[in-house]
Amino acid sequence: MQKVSQKVGFIGLGIMGLPMAANLIKNGHQLVVYNRTKSRAESLGAMGAELAGSPDEVASKCQVTLSILTDAPDVEQVLTGGGGYINGAKKGDIFVDMGTNSPSNARRFASLLSEKEVKFLDAPVTGGQKGAQDGTLTIMVGGEESAFEMARVLFEHMGKKVVYGGPTGSGQLLKMCNQIVVALDMVASTEALLVARKAGVPDSKLFDVLSSGAANSFTVQNLLPKMMKGDFEPGFRAAHLKKDLSYATSLSRELGIPVFGASTALQLYTALTSMGMGEKGTQALKKLYDAVGTQP
Amino acid sequence: MQKVSQKVGFIGLGIMGLPMAANLIKNGHQLVVYNRTKSRAESLGAMGAELAGSPDEVASKCQVTLSILTDAPDVEQVLTGGGGYINGAKKGDIFVDMGTNSPSNARRFASLLSEKEVKFLDAPVTGGQKGAQDGTLTIMVGGEESAFEMARVLFEHMGKKVVYGGPTGSGQLLKMCNQIVVALDMVASTEALLVARKAGVPDSKLFDVLSSGAANSFTVQNLLPKMMKGDFEPGFRAAHLKKDLSYATSLSRELGIPVFGASTALQLYTALTSMGMGEKGTQALKKLYDAVGTQP
Repeated sequence: MQKVSQKVGFIGLGIMGLPMAANLIKNGHQLVVYNRTKSRAESLGAMGAELAGSPDEVASKCQVTLSILTDAPDVEQVLTGGGGYINGAKKGDIFVDMGTNSPSNARRFASLLSEKEVKFLDAPVTGGQKGAQDGTLTIMVGGEESAFEMARVLFEHMGKKVVYGGPTGSGQLLKMCNQIVVALDMVASTEALLVARKAGVPDSKLFDVLSSGAANSFTVQNLLPKMMKGDFEPGFRAAHLKKDLSYATSLSRELGIPVFGASTALQLYTALTSMGMGEKGTQALKKLYDAVGTQP
Repeated sequence: MQKVSQKVGFIGLGIMGLPMAANLIKNGHQLVVYNRTKSRAESLGAMGAELAGSPDEVASKCQVTLSILTDAPDVEQVLTGGGGYINGAKKGDIFVDMGTNSPSNARRFASLLSEKEVKFLDAPVTGGQKGAQDGTLTIMVGGEESAFEMARVLFEHMGKKVVYGGPTGSGQLLKMCNQIVVALDMVASTEALLVARKAGVPDSKLFDVLSSGAANSFTVQNLLPKMMKGDFEPGFRAAHLKKDLSYATSLSRELGIPVFGASTALQLYTALTSMGMGEKGTQALKKLYDAVGTQP
């Protein structure tokens, strides 16, 4: 544990943000935190974090501010809404968006902040709630390399793998690619489980096979068992995966790349969210198949 | 290495069969082998295997015969064609089909052999050419448990994981589920690579991200690097995956399970095979996307 003198801002204390911020405190950083729902910040206050009343206040007290928010409108609200970050930000400050957004949103945020000579990094993460808690996230970063080097120690205190991808938007590009894979891996596990069950194969046999050979994956190891147990609580929410796939397929269309698989996954997660299951974990995809007639 | 006295039959010495048979010899089994193309058997002859002139001859010399052939018509030809296995088989013998076939084909083979009181096991494998060579295959077995117990030592000398699934067809059922996952994992890696490349992200960055977090899989670790290098040589042939997906989607239809993902994967591998790429490895899926306009 090393003592780092400068205060670090942290905005957005959800499933991911809260344990990530806690890991920064545990690694010796002095945090100034802000969350729309104040009660979410209390546990960090008890750990020694300073509780700010607005993003503006965070900006005025910190050179580097990290945020992890659900979607682009939330980031925009934090940056330029009432009491917004931009009001308190100073030349040379760094704002890091660790939520998942499209590369074009990342470039828009960067341009918006450049008016006050504030630098922007897009730094989305993968590894889920467990990775956030254990400090084993993978963090993908885009933006000016000098700004990345300044924020690097913070990333290293929240994740086990930090990949600098290149210019603004590169972190989000890598995240889009990651989410295409994550989503299709989940479609795969879901369909395999439903076929096996309907055919009378015990779950334990299916898991034995999938986890030991060419079908093995993080999803098979970590999310298929939850699906088998009927545990649909979110490590990562279905509605967020739908949003990520929506960005990924839009990006693919802009690039002229047909994404047959990712498009199918987007339709499935759109349907699941329409069923009211958006707040469940991505493994709740099973519920969609169940709903169309494959119970139990 | 233990010496096992009974001769074991082995029919079909392709990409998979040849190294699997070699592992049995290395583990002390005396093999009687047959292959349609005789030259494929020579290396095993040099290791001490007896070369038979027909499946009939294999059957007459062995109590347990393993086969790994491409498709159901090949198995049928070996069993009941000219010089077929069934002519030499004796009551109490065991015939094991280690190729991938539908569960209904497995039941048909079992029924056909039961006329001579020969037992049948379906025992498809996963792990690819590398698993066959290293003896690290996963082997999924269906059929009478007593027959499984008799053949078990052979499976253990070819694989690291042997899963007994239940009655005839259970091995194939597990394999279908496995192939749904394997195919979608490959679609995922392919689409992620093409999006990343078109967006200008270096391959090494993409691999770093995918291999370290929630997107990690056997496919990402073992086949994505081949795809990145442009190495499309088969560990497992695209045409075989197409066949497996065809069985898997038919089975799903019979069971009343919609398989949105597996159906998409079947269409993609059908197209790839139609392009003349069926003899390439499954990672040649990239060539399909390239052909529709995403070069390089």
